[in-house]
Amino acid sequence: MKIRVVVPIITDRFNEEVHREAAGFAAPDAEIDVVSLKKGPASIESFYDEILAAPFITDEVIRAEGEKCDGVFITCFGDPGVESSREVVDIPVVGGFQPAALTASLLCDRWSVVTVLERLRPMVRHNARKLGLMENLASVRAVDIPVLSLEDSRLLKERLLEQAEKAIQEDGAEAIVLGCTGMLGLAQSLMKELADADLPVPVVDPTAAAIGYLQVLIRAGLAHSKLAYPSPPEKKRSF
Amino acid sequence: MKIRVVVPIITDRFNEEVHREAAGFAAPDAEIDVVSLKKGPASIESFYDEILAAPFITDEVIRAEGEKCDGVFITCFGDPGVESSREVVDIPVVGGFQPAALTASLLCDRWSVVTVLERLRPMVRHNARKLGLMENLASVRAVDIPVLSLEDSRLLKERLLEQAEKAIQEDGAEAIVLGCTGMLGLAQSLMKELADADLPVPVVDPTAAAIGYLQVLIRAGLAHSKLAYPSPPEKKRSF
Amino acid sequence: MKIRVVVPIITDRFNEEVHREAAGFAAPDAEIDVVSLKKGPASIESFYDEILAAPFITDEVIRAEGEKCDGVFITCFGDPGVESSREVVDIPVVGGFQPAALTASLLCDRWSVVTVLERLRPMVRHNARKLGLMENLASVRAVDIPVLSLEDSRLLKERLLEQAEKAIQEDGAEAIVLGCTGMLGLAQSLMKELADADLPVPVVDPTAAAIGYLQVLIRAGLAHSKLAYPSPPEKKRSF
Amino acid sequence: MKIRVVVPIITDRFNEEVHREAAGFAAPDAEIDVVSLKKGPASIESFYDEILAAPFITDEVIRAEGEKCDGVFITCFGDPGVESSREVVDIPVVGGFQPAALTASLLCDRWSVVTVLERLRPMVRHNARKLGLMENLASVRAVDIPVLSLEDSRLLKERLLEQAEKAIQEDGAEAIVLGCTGMLGLAQSLMKELADADLPVPVVDPTAAAIGYLQVLIRAGLAHSKLAYPSPPEKKRSF
Amino acid sequence: MKIRVVVPIITDRFNEEVHREAAGFAAPDAEIDVVSLKKGPASIESFYDEILAAPFITDEVIRAEGEKCDGVFITCFGDPGVESSREVVDIPVVGGFQPAALTASLLCDRWSVVTVLERLRPMVRHNARKLGLMENLASVRAVDIPVLSLEDSRLLKERLLEQAEKAIQEDGAEAIVLGCTGMLGLAQSLMKELADADLPVPVVDPTAAAIGYLQVLIRAGLAHSKLAYPSPPEKKRSF
Amino acid sequence: MKIRVVVPIITDRFNEEVHREAAGFAAPDAEIDVVSLKKGPASIESFYDEILAAPFITDEVIRAEGEKCDGVFITCFGDPGVESSREVVDIPVVGGFQPAALTASLLCDRWSVVTVLERLRPMVRHNARKLGLMENLASVRAVDIPVLSLEDSRLLKERLLEQAEKAIQEDGAEAIVLGCTGMLGLAQSLMKELADADLPVPVVDPTAAAIGYLQVLIRAGLAHSKLAYPSPPEKKRSF
Repeated sequence: MKIRVVVPIITDRFNEEVHREAAGFAAPDAEIDVVSLKKGPASIESFYDEILAAPFITDEVIRAEGEKCDGVFITCFGDPGVESSREVVDIPVVGGFQPAALTASLLCDRWSVVTVLERLRPMVRHNARKLGLMENLASVRAVDIPVLSLEDSRLLKERLLEQAEKAIQEDGAEAIVLGCTGMLGLAQSLMKELADADLPVPVVDPTAAAIGYLQVLIRAGLAHSKLAYPSPPEKKRSF
Repeated sequence: MKIRVVVPIITDRFNEEVHREAAGFAAPDAEIDVVSLKKGPASIESFYDEILAAPFITDEVIRAEGEKCDGVFITCFGDPGVESSREVVDIPVVGGFQPAALTASLLCDRWSVVTVLERLRPMVRHNARKLGLMENLASVRAVDIPVLSLEDSRLLKERLLEQAEKAIQEDGAEAIVLGCTGMLGLAQSLMKELADADLPVPVVDPTAAAIGYLQVLIRAGLAHSKLAYPSPPEKKRSF
Repeated sequence: MKIRVVVPIITDRFNEEVHREAAGFAAPDAEIDVVSLKKGPASIESFYDEILAAPFITDEVIRAEGEKCDGVFITCFGDPGVESSREVVDIPVVGGFQPAALTASLLCDRWSVVTVLERLRPMVRHNARKLGLMENLASVRAVDIPVLSLEDSRLLKERLLEQAEKAIQEDGAEAIVLGCTGMLGLAQSLMKELADADLPVPVVDPTAAAIGYLQVLIRAGLAHSKLAYPSPPEKKRSF
Repeated sequence: MKIRVVVPIITDRFNEEVHREAAGFAAPDAEIDVVSLKKGPASIESFYDEILAAPFITDEVIRAEGEKCDGVFITCFGDPGVESSREVVDIPVVGGFQPAALTASLLCDRWSVVTVLERLRPMVRHNARKLGLMENLASVRAVDIPVLSLEDSRLLKERLLEQAEKAIQEDGAEAIVLGCTGMLGLAQSLMKELADADLPVPVVDPTAAAIGYLQVLIRAGLAHSKLAYPSPPEKKRSF
Repeated sequence: MKIRVVVPIITDRFNEEVHREAAGFAAPDAEIDVVSLKKGPASIESFYDEILAAPFITDEVIRAEGEKCDGVFITCFGDPGVESSREVVDIPVVGGFQPAALTASLLCDRWSVVTVLERLRPMVRHNARKLGLMENLASVRAVDIPVLSLEDSRLLKERLLEQAEKAIQEDGAEAIVLGCTGMLGLAQSLMKELADADLPVPVVDPTAAAIGYLQVLIRAGLAHSKLAYPSPPEKKRSF
Repeated sequence: MKIRVVVPIITDRFNEEVHREAAGFAAPDAEIDVVSLKKGPASIESFYDEILAAPFITDEVIRAEGEKCDGVFITCFGDPGVESSREVVDIPVVGGFQPAALTASLLCDRWSVVTVLERLRPMVRHNARKLGLMENLASVRAVDIPVLSLEDSRLLKERLLEQAEKAIQEDGAEAIVLGCTGMLGLAQSLMKELADADLPVPVVDPTAAAIGYLQVLIRAGLAHSKLAYPSPPEKKRSF
């Protein structure tokens, strides 16, 4: 099976690392490739970034289906372009939020998101409300580091631990969801640090959940409901 | 005060009628003007149409603020581009769904939406979930007429009455919300027909609610929360 | 159009200030007048006060309709007598809570109420539950000043700012609703102080929302649902 | 222990039957007496009736406490005057709705109310929302017989059975709550008829639940929370 | 009437105290007896303990019905074996959670549970979700004392007061539910201490609520819905 | 990786078919084996069956961990023994309900369950409430065929199609979840029949979802939260 990862920003400098991360969660028969956008924003940290990216993401998803991919992962926690993409293709399409939120709900029924910036709280909340899962969302916390500065991983790790501990101790979380797909390769170490602090909770990496979920769907012959996401009617559209 | 209506499609053939409708709900000191898009879809009936329209809508909202408008109404029941627009301007911005849903909730606590096509049910549901108002939504029904065919108003009126009656009698609705901003000038007559059928319920026209709500906000010196919709950070964006 | 404001207490000493406040939110063609009660409580701070006021409020609403008013605002955040009044007249009737709560929900989806006394928390919660909007209510906080002492505006302003900051920082509110219609003329200054403290959120004055909403309804030819609030059947009633 | 039943209407013609019904659910050491109102409505079928009755109900509850009653049942499914009464006394006070709704929730988690008139649906819904129990309410149905005509018990029984069957078969109810305290002495026979129709569900009589619940509270030394229902502050009140 | 209390653990050393407590909440005509298990766990503090106890609890409930008991109280806050027992008998069966949660909801609409161990929070949450009452649950707090050490009542009382105060002051509780049926005889003294600390809230003892509720049901001729809990079909079962 | 399937009933006659089904959803590196119980019920169709099976299921899960399995699927839609098993092992354990419900929620946000018997509706509802997903559950329908008669697949297929169509057309479902893990090998054909009837919705086979989900968790190094499911404390337990 062939899974396409769409990095919804205009740089390919993360593609290799994204590939490595994604491939680590793939079965032997699952092939992963990674593309980024030609046009769109440098990173996604606002509804404005999302709408600038969405048309180009959707194009990439159409292209992926044309190139015989079996599923697509739009690697952003905001799920930009997921709904429009589901309308224009028949293969399963997931973003970063939904698979992670659902996976966390399998592991316990109160979990928190630790994301990059405070400003993303309404976006996460909207995604949780749309998914019908608000009852399980204990809190949304932020490390206060912009996406493009996540590479200073020492600061990031420090803040992740701090916010995850607060989520557990103050907000009642029993699992942590990393709230940005740019937080690569950190779930296992955070999980270990929390366990060492006597807070033995799972940490869900959205890439792991998304790549995993696509394999579930592909093996089961499933894709999104075409009653929920029917093909757009033909009409004039200029862009 | 000056209110700009953005018709989020690539034709100006409805602008005059939209203007007439909107102006009917404006106070003497409220000036309305109407623009449509240069690029985008011919009508909005899918998530795909929404994302193709959203960037151009957002541009128009920015232009409206630049031209000293006091508020903007994006006249579509899907609320396309509303969230991104709120991030890039300080004046209040509303779409068709939220003002109508909130107004209906003031008039009773169980209301139904009658929209154009069955396929829009998930979109309406998502908007209701995001707004935190699902408890009040009795049902979403459709007249099964595409947006661009709404002008055959006889068929439309017939089907609206039929679906509104079902919403009241079968789904327990106590008010009706017209679920497409293209259903112009029909609320009062539908309300009368329903009353004649011994179903005395209000019918909320989304244009009335939106134009009305903008005046509420402008007179009160209010706009959307800048904690919920902060300005997007500076970064490279190509489009 | 003619809007009647009913001050649901037995003093007319606030009428002038209420009139000034309300008129500030009215369109040029909207005429406001203000009446208070002959019988009832000196202020409304309990369910007990509400039921003592409700019959007299309802009488005033009937009188307002008889005097050709187009809408009535019962100026109390507890919404006393709103439901009974809606049954006995055909013109729109609103209290202080519903319009403010709905307006806040248009501006963001997590907001807090700052009211006068802790003891009103269950009352506010009941109103929010009845309106189907609990999901948006971040918290209810109080300044701990009785209604009739609100006139010491320095203390009030200080405590409002303090509680509003806590609501935003501790409870996750993205907008503030003033939880007493006696908190007149304070929304704009509180909004400014919060913005100065880097907490740029809207502050909803219930009078602004109510007067605004009535104009929305009147211009749209709407009133509460007569299926939800049918006329009371004829029967013997002594009082 | 001494339990006072307040029939919140201006006739004593039901008092004897109410007493017989209530006494049937009392333990040997529980003494019941019944009073009706001097002023108020002839029956309660609207919010308007409720507010006309509430002040006089509250007076009776104060009197009951003065006369050393240990608890009060306001025998109406709308729970009129319950909240105000709880503020002014320390003994437990219940209406018809809350005890019945809670009892039904102990017996299954989807139940329907069958009440007298369609018009009471919003009232029942408000009570269920305030109680936080909407998730368990399958539907509200009506026999379409006014309160004061309930005495034709043949028609009533026929319609009760019909609506209860529909509630079970169409709305998924697993228990029935009689939605009017005037439906006296019918629960057991309806339960039997339903069982005979292969629909073995409990039928909750609100009087049974209320009288029973008061005994629970009195034996346990419990009353409503004084943080939720604190005493009203002293102030001028004219009535 | 005859009520059987099943202590779902393999010791009878609490039976006498349980009997004394339960009998204190019984009417003169209600006879109480108490049995404990032959097999099962020494105490119930995990889902694992619950499933080990459930088959033996269910056996005891069958036996109770055979011995002409009119109702059964399984005295554990986790409600172990309640659902299976309801399927195999026709008499009413309650555990510790549901009666207490429903009783608290009659007294206010925000209450907290104070239980023995932090680890029971998911169990309480599951019970509240199943009952449809999550909206009323302000928080779950723990005294951090295992069930079998509850007998050091000084430490227990101290911690109960501390956690109850926090529940009221930090979580907004307006009533307290004791979250372990082993916390015998403490409700009244805790209630007094809280009142002395100016926190006048009811404290619900689950034994009081359960014994009380059974009397409500028995006097009203009610038991759990046989549509919700139908008899198990005949089949081979080995154990 | 090695996945153990526990068939929670006392026959091994389904093991081979279960193995074939499960293996069809496994990646090349995932090895599946299947065991059934020595003691317990012949099939699971009641809470009573669940509690009789749970101790033996839990034993099998402990044994699976001892035998170096990486994850366990308890193949029953009621999720019997899942919670207790999670407490006693560190490897991931899933039942039939949760993975299917979460997978369906990824594909749309309104789905229905079609299960074997009407009597299982409360059980499914409890599972959905515990998972925090009630908002997405459109309905629970039944084919009215006992588990042990499912092998007459013609009747089963006919009734599945009939109930699935009703779920979509009357209840608004946009996906179908097969509500019994004994409905083996039917998802794809039902999906095709529905598509032929112009109802293009996904049909989720709980075995596909469970086997798939376990692989997600195992590849991601995740298991259930140990704060939610901590190890049971040592104590005396006889069984």
